[in-house]
Amino acid sequence: MTSSWVEGTDGSDYSTAVLPMGVAVLPGNDAPHTVTRIGDQVLDLHDVARSGLGGDDLSPLLTTGTLNSVLAAGRPVWTQLRTTLTTWLSDPAYRERVTPHLHPTSTAHLVMPFEVADYVDFYSSEQHARNVGAIFRPDSPGLPENWKHLPIGYHGRAGTVVVSGTNIVRPHGQHKPRNAAEPSFGPSARLDIEAEVGFVVGTPSKLGYPVHPGALTDHVFGVVLVNDWSARDIQAWEYVPLGPFLGKSFATSISPWVIPLDALAPARCPLPSQDPPVFGYLRDDDPWCLDLRLSVTLNGSVISEPPFATQYWSPGQQMAHLTINGASLRTGDLFASGTVTGAQRLQRGSLLELSWGGREPFTLDDGSERTFLEDGDTVSISGWAPGPDGTRVGLGDVTGTVLAAS
Amino acid sequence: MTSSWVEGTDGSDYSTAVLPMGVAVLPGNDAPHTVTRIGDQVLDLHDVARSGLGGDDLSPLLTTGTLNSVLAAGRPVWTQLRTTLTTWLSDPAYRERVTPHLHPTSTAHLVMPFEVADYVDFYSSEQHARNVGAIFRPDSPGLPENWKHLPIGYHGRAGTVVVSGTNIVRPHGQHKPRNAAEPSFGPSARLDIEAEVGFVVGTPSKLGYPVHPGALTDHVFGVVLVNDWSARDIQAWEYVPLGPFLGKSFATSISPWVIPLDALAPARCPLPSQDPPVFGYLRDDDPWCLDLRLSVTLNGSVISEPPFATQYWSPGQQMAHLTINGASLRTGDLFASGTVTGAQRLQRGSLLELSWGGREPFTLDDGSERTFLEDGDTVSISGWAPGPDGTRVGLGDVTGTVLAAS
Repeated sequence: MTSSWVEGTDGSDYSTAVLPMGVAVLPGNDAPHTVTRIGDQVLDLHDVARSGLGGDDLSPLLTTGTLNSVLAAGRPVWTQLRTTLTTWLSDPAYRERVTPHLHPTSTAHLVMPFEVADYVDFYSSEQHARNVGAIFRPDSPGLPENWKHLPIGYHGRAGTVVVSGTNIVRPHGQHKPRNAAEPSFGPSARLDIEAEVGFVVGTPSKLGYPVHPGALTDHVFGVVLVNDWSARDIQAWEYVPLGPFLGKSFATSISPWVIPLDALAPARCPLPSQDPPVFGYLRDDDPWCLDLRLSVTLNGSVISEPPFATQYWSPGQQMAHLTINGASLRTGDLFASGTVTGAQRLQRGSLLELSWGGREPFTLDDGSERTFLEDGDTVSISGWAPGPDGTRVGLGDVTGTVLAAS
Repeated sequence: MTSSWVEGTDGSDYSTAVLPMGVAVLPGNDAPHTVTRIGDQVLDLHDVARSGLGGDDLSPLLTTGTLNSVLAAGRPVWTQLRTTLTTWLSDPAYRERVTPHLHPTSTAHLVMPFEVADYVDFYSSEQHARNVGAIFRPDSPGLPENWKHLPIGYHGRAGTVVVSGTNIVRPHGQHKPRNAAEPSFGPSARLDIEAEVGFVVGTPSKLGYPVHPGALTDHVFGVVLVNDWSARDIQAWEYVPLGPFLGKSFATSISPWVIPLDALAPARCPLPSQDPPVFGYLRDDDPWCLDLRLSVTLNGSVISEPPFATQYWSPGQQMAHLTINGASLRTGDLFASGTVTGAQRLQRGSLLELSWGGREPFTLDDGSERTFLEDGDTVSISGWAPGPDGTRVGLGDVTGTVLAAS
């Protein structure tokens, strides 16, 4: 790991081995600026670039107020950018020119880091899929017939992907309790979270040309944490036969920092074995998942610690499946893992699972009980990954507070 | 109807009562220009605006090479634009200045008219839903339990919405014939069409604020024809439990001309009665559908004439349902009706229905038989609507040719 001249950052969750990318409104500015983070400080890359350090190649990418320009630049530029940022923050020769553009993180208002093109949500945790089966079909639990043959997924609403900190208004909708004769209409009574990991596409692919799982690092720039808010009662009534729609589309929150895949190289871990064997287009000579450790808090109480390393389908396989029919990738595409759930009770990534369908309330540190979310509840999903030399790579967090239905 | 000085256009399907909006690459240009159509000629609105006729308000909207700028401008500007176009094409005082910018339609290469934000596909034809039920569940046909309570819909892939004329490569994917023990992988053997009508959103709505069905004309600029290509075998294997994904996401074709809702005012027709009564958020004092007459040809043979007027759910209700959970609308959102199917056999909007699940081949004019699409097949969906004074409003067409799997 390269040592930084910014004091106290070398052992931190945001050392030079991380260098997440985001967009922030900083003190004295109206316009959003592209930023990175070092320790507890935000570096205004827009202003650094404008000061002349960015050069003709990087400056245009860092002064657009969105990461889309960086995402579109592609793998060679991502590598160049990372090298440049590391030099700025480690070579003392840059200290004087860079220091004026450092700001305490507490003063940075982080905004939506990129414009989402298409949003796809997968369903790639075997334990999650098994739990959902057992909760809804206790007499015949198990995986759907197709589950081990393909990473099941669906398209969500890109226009309602919001940045961490956005309040979540409890949605209205139709629902029909199991024993009711007719559906009713009103605010969702079973508002839930889904703790997920999202992959942000930079380099597009061509319509009609499937992408191999091994090409993940060519196309994906980095990772965000995702809370795929879900209204279980709305979802249950609407989803046959075309899948989730309004039960999901009111909001999906993402963390403001995009963690470059490059920073997560030390966190690569083997995939669990896949049986039955998968079709050729899903095979990779060197398949890997990521050892990301998530933590979910509700009003400050840690309620779950889902381990991303337990996913059945890898991000490379998700990308390959998404494109096997010729569908193209675009800059800004976001595909998420689906709820991350481990084998243990306190590794479940949704309240649906933690409360076993609402039948087993769980207790918060203040003694209050929950099955689903109440108005005023604040949920935060944070995470970290193993970094180089025993350090950690901070993944930031995605937070949202539930407001009463309007 | 206002008479035009452009000869032979008054009684045509593209009179001054239509004025569709599109984007075309015209002879001598590399860049796409915003255009409208009058009779068999395309008017280059970019060049007209640049010539000084556009004024400070309309010129910036007409010179961006995409309709998104027009869409975002909102209802009052749409009205102003329509009035201005009518004046240019009807007042002889403009003849000399406008004429140089008219081009034969045959010389215009029409391109994607707008960038799609989110794409939603509904399932709003009762006859279509009943047919699908009868084909797949002959022992217990009928509608899903929720069908008459809400307009069922799902999100499709915005990034693979393509303009008419784009070739459609037969997609690869997993499928599992009903009696097979294991899934197989290969080109889809059940490639199908869906004849639909799409609504193009101009004015956005605010996150958290549902939109009333009566506000359709405030938000929707116009209408396109849609062919929602579908690989039935891929879809059948993947869609439980999260809905259609790769069976649809390889391509959705739209017609290049966006027909303003204003042009379709004479085509408004009452909705069929809805029983059971719908929830309040789906109620409109003056509900209406549109009397759009579609025609589907396969290699030149007319195989179906689906009547849009038979839809159960109105476009206003679709928009209201889409937003009742607080989901916002964005400029460029496209929501489509789902397959349009009437009561008669030759009014079915998909080959799945025309061949009754592949069990009843139908015959083309050249004597050849079809169940699903063969490589080289060309499908065209065209349409018209009643206009003022006994004229017709042309809806253009959406065409695509199937290429062999690559």
